[in-house]
Amino acid sequence: MDPTEPRTQDLGFARLDVDRAARTGDPEVVLGQGKRPEQVVTLLRTLHREHPDRAVLATRLAPEALDLVARELPQATVDDVARAAMLGPLPSPRGLVLVVAAGTSDAPVAAEAALSVAAHGAGVRRVDDVGVAGLHRLLAVRDELAAADALVVVAGMEGALPSVVGGLVGVPLVAVPSSIGYGASLGGVSALLGMLNSCAPGIGVVNIDNGYGAGVLAARIARQ
Amino acid sequence: MDPTEPRTQDLGFARLDVDRAARTGDPEVVLGQGKRPEQVVTLLRTLHREHPDRAVLATRLAPEALDLVARELPQATVDDVARAAMLGPLPSPRGLVLVVAAGTSDAPVAAEAALSVAAHGAGVRRVDDVGVAGLHRLLAVRDELAAADALVVVAGMEGALPSVVGGLVGVPLVAVPSSIGYGASLGGVSALLGMLNSCAPGIGVVNIDNGYGAGVLAARIARQ
Amino acid sequence: MDPTEPRTQDLGFARLDVDRAARTGDPEVVLGQGKRPEQVVTLLRTLHREHPDRAVLATRLAPEALDLVARELPQATVDDVARAAMLGPLPSPRGLVLVVAAGTSDAPVAAEAALSVAAHGAGVRRVDDVGVAGLHRLLAVRDELAAADALVVVAGMEGALPSVVGGLVGVPLVAVPSSIGYGASLGGVSALLGMLNSCAPGIGVVNIDNGYGAGVLAARIARQ
Amino acid sequence: MDPTEPRTQDLGFARLDVDRAARTGDPEVVLGQGKRPEQVVTLLRTLHREHPDRAVLATRLAPEALDLVARELPQATVDDVARAAMLGPLPSPRGLVLVVAAGTSDAPVAAEAALSVAAHGAGVRRVDDVGVAGLHRLLAVRDELAAADALVVVAGMEGALPSVVGGLVGVPLVAVPSSIGYGASLGGVSALLGMLNSCAPGIGVVNIDNGYGAGVLAARIARQ
Amino acid sequence: MDPTEPRTQDLGFARLDVDRAARTGDPEVVLGQGKRPEQVVTLLRTLHREHPDRAVLATRLAPEALDLVARELPQATVDDVARAAMLGPLPSPRGLVLVVAAGTSDAPVAAEAALSVAAHGAGVRRVDDVGVAGLHRLLAVRDELAAADALVVVAGMEGALPSVVGGLVGVPLVAVPSSIGYGASLGGVSALLGMLNSCAPGIGVVNIDNGYGAGVLAARIARQ
Amino acid sequence: MDPTEPRTQDLGFARLDVDRAARTGDPEVVLGQGKRPEQVVTLLRTLHREHPDRAVLATRLAPEALDLVARELPQATVDDVARAAMLGPLPSPRGLVLVVAAGTSDAPVAAEAALSVAAHGAGVRRVDDVGVAGLHRLLAVRDELAAADALVVVAGMEGALPSVVGGLVGVPLVAVPSSIGYGASLGGVSALLGMLNSCAPGIGVVNIDNGYGAGVLAARIARQ
Amino acid sequence: MDPTEPRTQDLGFARLDVDRAARTGDPEVVLGQGKRPEQVVTLLRTLHREHPDRAVLATRLAPEALDLVARELPQATVDDVARAAMLGPLPSPRGLVLVVAAGTSDAPVAAEAALSVAAHGAGVRRVDDVGVAGLHRLLAVRDELAAADALVVVAGMEGALPSVVGGLVGVPLVAVPSSIGYGASLGGVSALLGMLNSCAPGIGVVNIDNGYGAGVLAARIARQ
Amino acid sequence: MDPTEPRTQDLGFARLDVDRAARTGDPEVVLGQGKRPEQVVTLLRTLHREHPDRAVLATRLAPEALDLVARELPQATVDDVARAAMLGPLPSPRGLVLVVAAGTSDAPVAAEAALSVAAHGAGVRRVDDVGVAGLHRLLAVRDELAAADALVVVAGMEGALPSVVGGLVGVPLVAVPSSIGYGASLGGVSALLGMLNSCAPGIGVVNIDNGYGAGVLAARIARQ
Ligand SMILES: Nc1ncnc2c1ncn2[C@@H]1O[C@H](COP(=O)(O)O)[C@@H](O)[C@H]1O
Ligand SMILES: Nc1ncnc2c1ncn2[C@@H]1O[C@H](COP(=O)(O)O)[C@@H](O)[C@H]1O
Ligand SMILES: Nc1ncnc2c1ncn2[C@@H]1O[C@H](COP(=O)(O)O)[C@@H](O)[C@H]1O
Ligand SMILES: Nc1ncnc2c1ncn2[C@@H]1O[C@H](COP(=O)(O)O)[C@@H](O)[C@H]1O
Ligand SMILES: [Mg+2]
Ligand SMILES: [Mg+2]
Ligand SMILES: [Mg+2]
Ligand SMILES: [Mg+2]
Ligand SMILES: [Mg+2]
Ligand SMILES: [Mg+2]
Ligand SMILES: [Mg+2]
Ligand SMILES: [Mg+2]
Repeated sequence: MDPTEPRTQDLGFARLDVDRAARTGDPEVVLGQGKRPEQVVTLLRTLHREHPDRAVLATRLAPEALDLVARELPQATVDDVARAAMLGPLPSPRGLVLVVAAGTSDAPVAAEAALSVAAHGAGVRRVDDVGVAGLHRLLAVRDELAAADALVVVAGMEGALPSVVGGLVGVPLVAVPSSIGYGASLGGVSALLGMLNSCAPGIGVVNIDNGYGAGVLAARIARQ
Repeated sequence: MDPTEPRTQDLGFARLDVDRAARTGDPEVVLGQGKRPEQVVTLLRTLHREHPDRAVLATRLAPEALDLVARELPQATVDDVARAAMLGPLPSPRGLVLVVAAGTSDAPVAAEAALSVAAHGAGVRRVDDVGVAGLHRLLAVRDELAAADALVVVAGMEGALPSVVGGLVGVPLVAVPSSIGYGASLGGVSALLGMLNSCAPGIGVVNIDNGYGAGVLAARIARQ
Repeated sequence: MDPTEPRTQDLGFARLDVDRAARTGDPEVVLGQGKRPEQVVTLLRTLHREHPDRAVLATRLAPEALDLVARELPQATVDDVARAAMLGPLPSPRGLVLVVAAGTSDAPVAAEAALSVAAHGAGVRRVDDVGVAGLHRLLAVRDELAAADALVVVAGMEGALPSVVGGLVGVPLVAVPSSIGYGASLGGVSALLGMLNSCAPGIGVVNIDNGYGAGVLAARIARQ
Repeated sequence: MDPTEPRTQDLGFARLDVDRAARTGDPEVVLGQGKRPEQVVTLLRTLHREHPDRAVLATRLAPEALDLVARELPQATVDDVARAAMLGPLPSPRGLVLVVAAGTSDAPVAAEAALSVAAHGAGVRRVDDVGVAGLHRLLAVRDELAAADALVVVAGMEGALPSVVGGLVGVPLVAVPSSIGYGASLGGVSALLGMLNSCAPGIGVVNIDNGYGAGVLAARIARQ
Repeated sequence: MDPTEPRTQDLGFARLDVDRAARTGDPEVVLGQGKRPEQVVTLLRTLHREHPDRAVLATRLAPEALDLVARELPQATVDDVARAAMLGPLPSPRGLVLVVAAGTSDAPVAAEAALSVAAHGAGVRRVDDVGVAGLHRLLAVRDELAAADALVVVAGMEGALPSVVGGLVGVPLVAVPSSIGYGASLGGVSALLGMLNSCAPGIGVVNIDNGYGAGVLAARIARQ
Repeated sequence: MDPTEPRTQDLGFARLDVDRAARTGDPEVVLGQGKRPEQVVTLLRTLHREHPDRAVLATRLAPEALDLVARELPQATVDDVARAAMLGPLPSPRGLVLVVAAGTSDAPVAAEAALSVAAHGAGVRRVDDVGVAGLHRLLAVRDELAAADALVVVAGMEGALPSVVGGLVGVPLVAVPSSIGYGASLGGVSALLGMLNSCAPGIGVVNIDNGYGAGVLAARIARQ
Repeated sequence: MDPTEPRTQDLGFARLDVDRAARTGDPEVVLGQGKRPEQVVTLLRTLHREHPDRAVLATRLAPEALDLVARELPQATVDDVARAAMLGPLPSPRGLVLVVAAGTSDAPVAAEAALSVAAHGAGVRRVDDVGVAGLHRLLAVRDELAAADALVVVAGMEGALPSVVGGLVGVPLVAVPSSIGYGASLGGVSALLGMLNSCAPGIGVVNIDNGYGAGVLAARIARQ
Repeated sequence: MDPTEPRTQDLGFARLDVDRAARTGDPEVVLGQGKRPEQVVTLLRTLHREHPDRAVLATRLAPEALDLVARELPQATVDDVARAAMLGPLPSPRGLVLVVAAGTSDAPVAAEAALSVAAHGAGVRRVDDVGVAGLHRLLAVRDELAAADALVVVAGMEGALPSVVGGLVGVPLVAVPSSIGYGASLGGVSALLGMLNSCAPGIGVVNIDNGYGAGVLAARIARQ
C-alpha cells in the first residue's frame, strides 16, 4: 500500500476520507456532534456522491441538523428516534443481527444500532424490553437469540443483560451500555463497568450509547 | 433516655460500648483491622464477660490475630475462611437467612455473612456458585429462595446476581459486592455500582466484602 | 417453574412484565425516565387493569408526564413533590415504616419513599429535618424510631444520619443518599459512600435519590 | 428450554456448570483468582472428564496453581507466560485470528488470548511489538491483518493501536487494554478509555488484561 | 529582583499584573470565564494601554462579552469560532507553528490555539481533519509537520493523534485534548489520559480544550 | 447536658434548631439549595425572631429567593454577589479576618466568606486578585497577611495560593477551592486536591465554593 | 521583605529552609517519605542546630529511619505509634488542643497529631474511641470539648464524627480523615468527602492521615 | 516517505524500531517495565550497534535489570537513582535545560529527566529543593531560570511549583508531576491536575514520574 495515494475530499472545513470503503469495506460516517447543520448536509451529500449505490449515514444529529437534512436532502431517511439520517440504497442484507434491549427507555440506542446494522449490510431484527428482572421474557426468545449471527445487547442501569444472554447462547455478542439510570449510574459508567466485568465470555463492549459502533461490529460479524 | 448514663468499658486503648446491646439488641463487634492481636483478644474477652450468654464476634482478623485468639481463648470458634472469631453460645435461631454466592471465589465473604447471621440470632443456610452465566443453577433453588425470611446475595465482577434474584422472589434482599475480579472491576466498585443500580427493587447494598454488615441486617429482618 | 409460562403484555414499545406480582408479591412499577408521557399513561393503565384492586405506581415523572396522567387518569393520585403517580386502592397496611429525613431539602426523596411504602402494603409515618448537627431533634424521637418495624433514612451532604440512627436502635434500616449538597458532594456520591462505610451495622443502602427502592425494601421488611 | 434440567456437577465448594457447552458451544473455563490450587486441579479434572475430546482451560493461575496442575495433571499444557493451563486435545481450527500486540511487555495478555483462541476452535497467529510510534511496523503487516477473520489487538499506555488498525482494515476487531504503563495509565484504565472512545468503528472492547475474553469472542467470530 | 517593585494596575475588581511582559516576555491575557462583559472590556482596554504596540488577548468569552467587545472596542479582532478577542497589532512572526486537528469538530480549540500563537509572536498554519482512522491524510502532510518549529496537536475522543505524529517527526509537540466525544469520553478526560500516556516521547500536554495555553507554549518554542 | 431539652421550632416543613447558638455560640444558618423561596423567608424570619439582636443568614439563594427576601423582609441585607441574605444587626467585631482571593472570578465565593465572617462576629477585610502567577501582588501585602488573626484564601484552577501564603506567614489559614476553571479542573476538585496536599502546614480546607463554612471557622478563630 | 535574603542551608541533597520559623513562627519539619534514613538524620540534626531551644520534628518515618534516628540521635524522642521523631525541648504550652479519635484503630494518626500540637507550642489531651455509633461516649465528654481552644477530630470509614462534634460545640475544629476502612472507603477518600460535606460549619479538613498538618493548625489556633 | 521501507530489527520477542532516529532525530529508548532483564540487555545492545556514536537509553529498570546491565554491558552508565542505563557517547550538548525539583524526595524523577536531556543532546543543570513553601529559595535562582533554553519542573503533592515558575519567567516549561505525597495525592494525580490547571500559561505536562518524556521534550526545545 502506498499510503499517500488514498483519495481525500478537501471540503475546506473537512478533509473527508473517501478512501475508507476501499480500505475497510465501509464508507466513512458523519459524526454530527460539534458540526453545524450545513456541514452535516455537505458531508452527507459528498459521501453519497462518492458511494451512489451504497447507503451513507450521519449520526448524533441535533434537531436542527435533522431538520436541515430533511429539507435539503428529501430523498434521505431521517430517523428521529435514532437521531440519524441515511442517504442511498441499503446494501442487500447478509446474515442476521438481533438487537436486544433491556428496557423501553433504551429505544434510541437500539434504533441507532439497528439502522447502522442495516446500513452496513446485514439483516436486522429487534427484541425490546427483556430486562433481567423478568427473565421469562428473555427465555421466551432464547431460540431467536441462538439463531442470530451476531447480537447487539443494549442495557442501562446495572447493565446485566449481556451477562445473562452470554450464559444462554454462544453467538458473538456486542454489548452497549446505555445512559438510562440516575445517581450512581454515573451517566452509563455503571452499566459500562458491569459489561466489561461480565462473568460470561465472548462479549465485546462499545462506548456508552454507541449504537452506531455496535451496529458496525455486529454487521461485520454477521455478513462474513 | 439520658445519654450520659449508658455504660462504657474503659480499656485504655478503647472505650468499649458495652451498652450497644441494650440500645440495639446486639452487642458491639470488634473490627480487627488496625488493631494489635492483644487488643483483639482483650476486646473479645471483655465483650464476652459483658454478654456471657450471647455470642460475641471479632471480624477482619489478620492471621496473627486469628492465631492469638485460638491460643488465648481456646473456647472461641475461629473461622479461617471468614477470618473471624466468635466467643460464647449462639442465640437460638429465629427465622431463616439464605446466603447466596455467585462463585466459589466469594466463599470468604459468604462465610463471614453466615457466621454473622448465626451470631445475631437467625438461622442460616448457604447456596454457593449460582452465578448468572449458568441460570439453571439458580432456577433450581428458586423455591428455597422464596421460602427464606431474608436473603444475602454475594457477587463480584459485574455483580448481577441480586438483580436476577430480585426479579424471581420478593424476599428482602441484602446485596454484598465482592472484590473478586480484576482490571475494570476496580476492587469491587463495579459490582457495588451494579447492585446500587439494580433494575429489581427491594435490594439494600452494603460495603464491598462486608459480609458482617449484611449478616446483621439480614438477621434483624429474619428474626422479627 | 416453567419460565416460558409467566405472562407478558406486549404493548409494542414495551413487553410489560405482568407476572411480577405473582413471583415477587408486588406488581411492576413504571420508571418514568426516558419514556414519553403517553407511554407512561398506557403503562399505568395496563398495570391497573391487571391489578385492579392493588395500587400501581409510576415514578420519576417529568412535569409533562405528571400533567398527562392527571388529565387522562383522573382517578390517579398525583404527588408533585414525589414526582410520582399512583392508581388503584392502597393495600391495607401491615407493620410500620418510619421515613426519617435529615433536612427540609430532602423532602422529594422522602415523599417518594413514603408513597412507595404505602403502595407496597405497609403503614408509614415521616420524621423530617433531624440532621446530626442538632442531635436533640433526633434523640427526641428515639422511642418512635425504636418502635418502627423498618426505617428509611434519607440524608444528603455527608450522609451521616444513618450511622447515628443505627447506633441508637436495632431496627432494620434502609439508607437513601440524597443529591442535596454541592461541590465535593459529587451529586450525592459522598453521601452514598458515607452510608456504605457506616460504622453502625445493619444498614442497607440504595441508589442516590432512590426513595422508591428504599420504600419497597422497607415495606417488605415491615409487612412480614 | 426447561431451565431446571441442564446438568450441574456439585463439587461441594463449586456447582460446576457442565451444561455450558450444550448451551453456548463452549465448555466452562476455570477462573483461578481466589481459588485454592487443589480446587483448580479438581475443577480442571472434572471439566476434562465431562469434555474428554475438547480442550478445557484454567486462567489467571498463581505460580502455586501452575505448579500443582503440572504435578497432578502431567498431560496438561502449562503456559507460564499466559499463566494458564489447558487439558485435552485442541479442536481442529476453523478460520484465523490474528493476535496483535503493541509492545513486548504485552506478551502475557497476548499469550492468554492466543491460547484461548486455540482452545475455542479457531486458528491463531501472533504479531508482536507493532505500536503506533513506529507505524511502518504495522503497515508492513497490513495484508496479514486484512486476511484474518478476526483480530485481537492488545495495547497498554494510551491504547491507540485498535484505532489505527480499525482505520486500515474492516475485519471484526476485539480490543484488549493492558495494564502496562504507570502513573496516569491508572492500571490500564487509560488504555481502556482510549479503546472505548475509538474514532474507528467496529471495535469491541474487553476488560483490562482480559486476553481470555477477547480470545473467546474472536474465536466465535472466526469459526463461524 | 525586588518583588515588591513590579507594577500592578488596581482596577477595583482586579489587580492587573501589568508587569507580566517584563518578567515573561508576554503580557497578561484576560480569562473571560466568570467575569462580567464590562470587566472584560475594561481589562482589555487597560492591557492595550499598557502594551500599545503588542496585541493583547481575551479568551473564553461568552456571546455577550464578544458582543460588548465588538461594540466598545471596534478596533478589536473578534473571533467567534475561537470565542476570543484581540486588540493591538500582531508581533512580527518568528518561526512557524503548525496547528493540527484530528476532526472538523475540534475547530474552536484549533482556532483558539492559532490565534494565541499569532498573538504571542510566531507564524502559524493550520492542518485540519487528519484523524488516525484515515492515516493517509496525515502521511500526506508529513513533510509539513517535519518543517515546523513546533506543533500543536488537537484531538478528542481517544486522543491518539499526538502519539502517531510523535512517532513520525521529532518536532516539539504540544498536545491538546478536546472535549469532543460522549459517554466514556468523560468530557475530554479520556483524550487527556491518552495523551499523557503516549508511547511517543517529547509531548507536553495542556488542559482539555486549552488552545490558549498550547498556543503560548508553542509560540515560545518556535520564536526562540 | 440533657439532649432532649434543647429547643426546636416546628415549622411543619422544618424542625428548626433554635438551640444551636446556645450550644455552639452561633445561630443556625439557612441553606437555600432545595428550598422554596417562601420557606427561606419563613426560616429567616423565625431565626430573626429567636435572635433579634444578632444577625442571621441565608446562603446559596436562587434569584427568586433573593427577590422574595428583598420584598418580604425589606430590612434584610441582600448581597447579590454572595447570593446571600442577612437579617438583624451585625455583632461587634472581635479580631480580624483577611479574605484573600486569587482572581477576579472568585468574587462570589470571597463575598460569601466575608459576609459570613462579619455575621459571625469578626472584623473582615478583602484582598482580591493576588494569584501566584504574579507573586509581587501577594508579596506587596505580606504584612497585612501577617497581621490578621485568621486568613480565608480562595482559589480556583490549581488552587496553589494557600501553599504560597502558608509559606509566608503562620496565621491560621482556611482554604476554599473555587469552581473557577474548566476541563481537568473538574468543577473545583483539582483546586480542592491541591489544597489538601499543600506542602505548607497549618491549612484547613472546606468544600468547593463554601465561603460560608470558611467564614464561620475563620471568625471563630479570630474572635477567640 | 527582601525575599532573596532569607537564609537557606545547602546540604547538597537539600536546600533546607531554615528561615521558615522567622517567617511563620514554626521551623521546617522533615517529611520522611522518599528520603533515605541518613538524610532524615542529617536534616533533623541541622534543624536542631538552627533551633537549639525549640523542638524540631520528622514525620512519616519508615522503621529503618526510626531506628537510625534512635541510634544516631539518642537524645531524640522516637514515637513508634506516630512514626515520628522529635529533637529538642518542647515549647511551653499555650492554650489547649483536644485530639479526639473515633476508634482505636485511628491511634497512629491521633498520636501524630498530638505530638505535632505539643511540638508547635500548645497543650494537648487525647480522647479516644468515641465514634458516632455509641453517642453516649461522646456526650459524656461534651464539657471537655467545649473547654478546649481547638479540636482535632480523627475518623475513618464514613468520617461522621466531626459533623456531630461540630453540632455540639463551637470550638474551631480541624478534621482528619483516616484511612481506616475497606472497600468503598477508598483509602480514606470517603471519610475525607464526608468531612468536606459536613452539615455543621466551622470545620477545616486536612489530607487523609495527616495528623501533622492538623496538629500545626490546631496549635496555631490554640496558642493565639 | 514510503512507510513500508523504514528498517526494523526482528528480535523474536521484539520488532525494534531502528528507524526512529531517521524519522525523529532520536533513537528508540527501552522501557524496562514488564521486560525481563535479558530482554533489556539485548535491546540496549542492539540499539547501541545501530547507533554506535550516539548514547542509547533504557529506563524504569528493576534492580535485577540494573544489575544485569552492569554485568553484561560494563561500558554502560548505570544510574541507580534514575533507575536507568545508558550506552554510548553523549551527543555534544546544544542549549541548556534546567531541571528544577520541588523537594529532596523528587530526586529519582529529576535524575531521570537530567539523564534523558543529556542523552538527547542538550546541556543540563539541576536545581533541587526549591518548593513554594520557601519562595526565597526559588527567587534566589530567578536569573538562572530566565537564562535557560527550556525548563523541566518536577513537583509532587499539590504540584504548584510550575505555576510559580511560569509566572516568573517565559522560558518554555515542561512540568512533571511526581508521586510523592499520600492520601489525597492519589499517587500523583493531584499534582498532575494542579499542573494541567496552572494559571500560568506556556506549560506542557507529562505523565506522573515521567522524567524521561520531559527530558526528551526539553532537549528538543533547547537544542533547536
Ligand atoms: N467487618 C466489619 N465491617 C464493617 N464494620 C465492622 C466490621 N466489624 C465491626 N464493625 C463495626 O466497627 C465498629 C467497631 O469499631 P472499633 O471501635 O474500631 O472496634 C463496630 O461498631 C462494628 O459495628
Ligand atoms: N481470565 C478470566 N477473566 C474473566 N473471566 C474468566 C476468566 N477465566 C474464566 N472466566 C469466567 O469466569 C467464570 C468462572 O467463574 P468461577 O465459577 O468462579 O470459576 C466462567 O464462567 C468463565 O467464563
Ligand atoms: N452555604 C452553605 N454551605 C454548607 N452548609 C451550609 C450552607 N448554608 C447553611 N449550611 C448548613 O446547612 C445546615 C442547614 O440545613 P437545612 O436544615 O437544610 O437548612 C445548617 O446547619 C448550616 O450550618
Ligand atoms: N520511562 C518511560 N516512560 C514512558 N515512555 C517510555 C519510557 N521509556 C521508554 N518509553 C517509550 O516507550 C516506548 C518503548 O516501548 P517498548 O517497545 O515496550 O520498549 C518507546 O517508544 C519509548 O519512547
Ligand atoms: Mg420494562
Ligand atoms: Mg462458578
Ligand atoms: Mg435543617
Ligand atoms: Mg516496542
Ligand atoms: Mg473527519
Ligand atoms: Mg487576575
Ligand atoms: Mg470502638
Ligand atoms: Mg524541602
